[in-house]
Amino acid sequence: MTAIDLPSLTRFADLLGPKGFTTDPDAMAPWLKDWRGRYEGAAAALLSPADADQVAAVVRLAGALGIALVPQGGNTSMVGGATPPATGNAMILSLRRMNAIRSIAAEDGVVVAEAGVILAHLHDAVLEHGMRFPLTLGGKGSATVGGLVSTNAGGTQVLRFGTMRALTLGIEAVLPDGSRFDGLSPLKKDNRGYDLKHLLIGAEGTLGIITAASLKLVPAILDRAVGWIGVETPHQALALLRFMEARAADAQEGFEIVPADSLALVLKHIPGTRAPLQGTHPWHVLVEMVRSDARAEASGAVLEQILGDALTAGLCRDATIAASEAQAEAFWKLRDSLSEAERASGPAVQHDISVPVSGMPDFMISAARDVEARFVGTRASAFGHLGDGNVHFHVRAPEDAALDWAKTAGKAVSAYVHDLVVAAGGSISAEHGIGQMKLEENARLSDPARLMALSAIKAAFDPKGLMNPGKLVLPGGLAQESLATRAPAP
Amino acid sequence: MTAIDLPSLTRFADLLGPKGFTTDPDAMAPWLKDWRGRYEGAAAALLSPADADQVAAVVRLAGALGIALVPQGGNTSMVGGATPPATGNAMILSLRRMNAIRSIAAEDGVVVAEAGVILAHLHDAVLEHGMRFPLTLGGKGSATVGGLVSTNAGGTQVLRFGTMRALTLGIEAVLPDGSRFDGLSPLKKDNRGYDLKHLLIGAEGTLGIITAASLKLVPAILDRAVGWIGVETPHQALALLRFMEARAADAQEGFEIVPADSLALVLKHIPGTRAPLQGTHPWHVLVEMVRSDARAEASGAVLEQILGDALTAGLCRDATIAASEAQAEAFWKLRDSLSEAERASGPAVQHDISVPVSGMPDFMISAARDVEARFVGTRASAFGHLGDGNVHFHVRAPEDAALDWAKTAGKAVSAYVHDLVVAAGGSISAEHGIGQMKLEENARLSDPARLMALSAIKAAFDPKGLMNPGKLVLPGGLAQESLATRAPAP
Repeated sequence: MTAIDLPSLTRFADLLGPKGFTTDPDAMAPWLKDWRGRYEGAAAALLSPADADQVAAVVRLAGALGIALVPQGGNTSMVGGATPPATGNAMILSLRRMNAIRSIAAEDGVVVAEAGVILAHLHDAVLEHGMRFPLTLGGKGSATVGGLVSTNAGGTQVLRFGTMRALTLGIEAVLPDGSRFDGLSPLKKDNRGYDLKHLLIGAEGTLGIITAASLKLVPAILDRAVGWIGVETPHQALALLRFMEARAADAQEGFEIVPADSLALVLKHIPGTRAPLQGTHPWHVLVEMVRSDARAEASGAVLEQILGDALTAGLCRDATIAASEAQAEAFWKLRDSLSEAERASGPAVQHDISVPVSGMPDFMISAARDVEARFVGTRASAFGHLGDGNVHFHVRAPEDAALDWAKTAGKAVSAYVHDLVVAAGGSISAEHGIGQMKLEENARLSDPARLMALSAIKAAFDPKGLMNPGKLVLPGGLAQESLATRAPAP
Repeated sequence: MTAIDLPSLTRFADLLGPKGFTTDPDAMAPWLKDWRGRYEGAAAALLSPADADQVAAVVRLAGALGIALVPQGGNTSMVGGATPPATGNAMILSLRRMNAIRSIAAEDGVVVAEAGVILAHLHDAVLEHGMRFPLTLGGKGSATVGGLVSTNAGGTQVLRFGTMRALTLGIEAVLPDGSRFDGLSPLKKDNRGYDLKHLLIGAEGTLGIITAASLKLVPAILDRAVGWIGVETPHQALALLRFMEARAADAQEGFEIVPADSLALVLKHIPGTRAPLQGTHPWHVLVEMVRSDARAEASGAVLEQILGDALTAGLCRDATIAASEAQAEAFWKLRDSLSEAERASGPAVQHDISVPVSGMPDFMISAARDVEARFVGTRASAFGHLGDGNVHFHVRAPEDAALDWAKTAGKAVSAYVHDLVVAAGGSISAEHGIGQMKLEENARLSDPARLMALSAIKAAFDPKGLMNPGKLVLPGGLAQESLATRAPAP
């Protein structure tokens, strides 16, 4: 990679003007580090183009000069996906200035938003039109549309509406050669060859820069009901989910599983929290039902009926429904505080993993048992999106562990967990992506066909390796070779 | 491409045995021509591997010998996508022998079917488990799972369940280097880099051979109700669709629009057909409602209520509901006979196109008007999947036209229709794919970014151009170049 000289910097400065270009260390500092403080890099400049034309011009100029670009939205990656490399030879390409909502067509259920639109702002803007963008997650106050699409983000409402992939009707992007891909038109059916939209969704900015997206809207919510349920096992929780889906699949939005020990950590470490149910239960489930059709029954009545029937049918131990919106928020706070409570209780390693839904209860039990047997003193627990086959599988360090346990002994634990996931036909990254954090594990655990295909695609789109280098695909020999040149002899 | 000598043929024969290899002209004849008789090619052999291991071995051997492979399922492509080139230097790789249903998990809603399973057999097999695979189309007695996935097939029930892309939970494939991609595990969330499943869906066998797929199942149907409705305009039809969706979106499976003149052709040319409604109407709509939950109201009652309300609200001119299953079939026969009736009435050119749903009524009116004004004596009409934004836009030749009009003067008509589609932000192939038929039009009408990306992907996966050559991507200079090597100067 070329060192970046002053004449080169000047060309970017001239292209973007003072609002779009800075090398000021103070202005750049917040964007050189990931929000959890795990990764830190350096950058020669922070570029903030005003529109897609400027993005294309930046990409062309960077290509000609051999300068790497690290696209960045809200900088809320869980895997170091938006942090520049340490070399300092890259530039950050912030999309945050491109924050226009270009159009909202409520009747068609489509919003066109630029890459820099913050998720919470998107929620507010479409609500004014009686509509809702149904994906939400913890970082909604910072996460941007471009980042959400580029990482195929998930969150807590995936059960009903799917991940960003299912909600992205079209995209506009700049490819690594600076050409513009205009795929914003929200076509329900389009079979004109390889699906570039699906290729760029989840590509983490390594194949191009998403500049805008057409996103699906649904009617706004009229009311919601949130319940807290005690269950015996993850198996019972899954049976309960199937029961509820058969009764009201189109109203069920949240189904989160929480083990007793994780709940205990929340109650211990997070001020102002209390258990929703009397007595103790081995596992807990948070459910949310939503109503958006005025002719339908209120969510509270529906949930009460279903949970009553579930109790009668022996599908849960106990259940309660939040009596107010404040109580509903309190239930969700228990769920949303799980990671924070765990951090307060000592070192741990986290794994964002998925297996087929039907296999998840067995996996949760057997993987926790195996990990605790193999790494004596550790405590494993899994919580999260049972209905999506996606849990956050966390392993806490033994009580006497050193503070840097996660970075030392914890590595072996993670490798072991990942091996179990692969053996169960699962994914070592269900929703957080690969970024830099999971690069080596993904390379270790993917079959050769997958790895070669990833490298071949990357090399075809970005042979100079200038788009978000060091993320998603390992650089090196494979990157410049095609699949067929590596074909084994027959 | 190498000429294929006897020693090479012998290697394939030895690999596959007598059941898996033939050069017999009579055995090969049916597979050298597309079912509509528009394309005819030649092949050095017909290969019929018994399992995925044999497919991988065939791909490796063909790669080493430089022999092109043309994958084939039911040979029901609408665009010549499964017909071998005329050179005779390719082999047909039939997946029809791989027709096992590996597993049916009714509770999980997943079936794993090999590439050669015929769609109608799949329907029957899962019905025995109380389940339904919801995609269906005219060629269901021949079309195979591998072909359906490779072409991202659509059909008449896309409105509720989507195309094959939405129904394909996982795939198993052999990549052009002979490596095996095992992506059958039906994960709801998986962010391990570029989505290879979505890349191979709709790739028409040009990036590898799909050998099996995990497909989504839904509960079997308890009853259905089919209605026939007279409407004033496509705009009124769309308003009716929105009205019905707001009332019973999760029960509505079919919504097909038929213009008066197309219906008249059916009544004239197809024996035993009669109009469902008294009187004449400018446009007609066929709707189908379905019930699969025993607790829900019967479809007939739901549809009667909704259509009654629609009449009262002035959203249609007249409506009737089939009184029996036989009558329901008769309604569908009117819809399914549109192409046949049109063929009986003289030469025509067909276009499988899509635009955004909200823009379709305007497009149907204005495009027909423009075509008829520009090509005097032609008659344009559009029918089909209004709710998907996908119609089949057909233009019939002037009455005095020569029999080969479609291949001569009709070409200019098609180019003009495609121009109108692109101007409306649409796709010139909504559900049939590109194959060889639309290769040049797709190249003419795609923006440079899309074309370069398609070529780059093809070259990265299949640099020798051995996988289904001459389909989907134009061969030539672009194919060996990457995106970035073609970057314009900044």
